Amino acid sequence: MYANDGFRELGREECLRLLATAPVGRVVHTRSALPAVLPVNFSLDDDGAVVLRTSAGSELARAVDGAVVAFEADEVDPIAHSGWSVVVTGRATVVADPAEHDRLTRDGPLSWAPSRQELFVRIEPELVTGRELAGGRTLYRLDLTG
Amino acid sequence: MYANDGFRELGREECLRLLATAPVGRVVHTRSALPAVLPVNFSLDDDGAVVLRTSAGSELARAVDGAVVAFEADEVDPIAHSGWSVVVTGRATVVADPAEHDRLTRDGPLSWAPSRQELFVRIEPELVTGRELAGGRTLYRLDLTG
Repeated sequence: MYANDGFRELGREECLRLLATAPVGRVVHTRSALPAVLPVNFSLDDDGAVVLRTSAGSELARAVDGAVVAFEADEVDPIAHSGWSVVVTGRATVVADPAEHDRLTRDGPLSWAPSRQELFVRIEPELVTGRELAGGRTLYRLDLTG
Repeated sequence: MYANDGFRELGREECLRLLATAPVGRVVHTRSALPAVLPVNFSLDDDGAVVLRTSAGSELARAVDGAVVAFEADEVDPIAHSGWSVVVTGRATVVADPAEHDRLTRDGPLSWAPSRQELFVRIEPELVTGRELAGGRTLYRLDLTG
C-alpha cells in the first residue's frame, strides 16, 4: 500500500472477508530472478493463511516453498470505477505434517481435477493489506497514482 | 510459464491480442524487498509495451522506474474452468522524452480522473508469455499444478 495514494485502506478482518469471496487469486513470486505471477484458486485457513492445492510434481510448489510471496485478489469494475484489492504477503511452505495434510484434504481448497499425489502450500498471513475503491477518483488513484 | 503444467502456451501475438481486451491488469514489482502487486489500468503501445499513466507524485512510478517488473492480466471463469493469463515482463521506465510524452498523452491510457501533472510509465515487452485454459483439467493445471 502506498501512503500518499488517497485510498481507504482496509483492516485485516475486512481484507480476509473480501478475500474469502474471491474465486481466484494470483501468486506473486520470483522465478529465475524475474517476477512471476500465476492465477490460482485457493482457500483461506482459519488463521487467514492462503492455502493452495497442487500436484506433488508441481513446479509452482518448488518455486515458492520457503520463499516470501504475495497473494493478490481483486475485484475491479472499470465501468463503475469501484472495487477492492487485497494482498497477503508471507512465507509459503509446503505442508509436511501428515495430520495437517489430512486436515487440509478435508477442509482445504478443492481440486477441480484431482491428481493422484497432491500437496498443500500455505502462505502465512504475515502482512494482510487491502484497499477499497469507490468512485472514479479513488479508482483513478488505484490505477494511476497507486 | 512452467514446462510441465500441461498448458497451451500462447504466442506473443495472441498474448498481446488478449491483453488488449483486458480493462485492468496488475503491476508486479518489489517494494521494501517484498513482492508487491497493484491493479492498474493501462494501454498497449504499438510495440506491445504496456503503458501506465500516473501522477507525477506517484509512489508507483518511483517504485518501478528502472526496475524489471511483470504486468499480468487474466480472465478466468471458475465455473466454466476456462480463461487465459498473460504476463509481460520487462524494464519499466518513466517516459522522459517530451515528444513521447505528448504522443502518449494523445494515444496512451486515459485518465479516469486527470491530475495536473502526469507521467507515463512504459513496461518494455521483453518477455511476453501466456497460457490458455480450456476445461477443468486445464484450469486445474493452471490453478493447482501451474
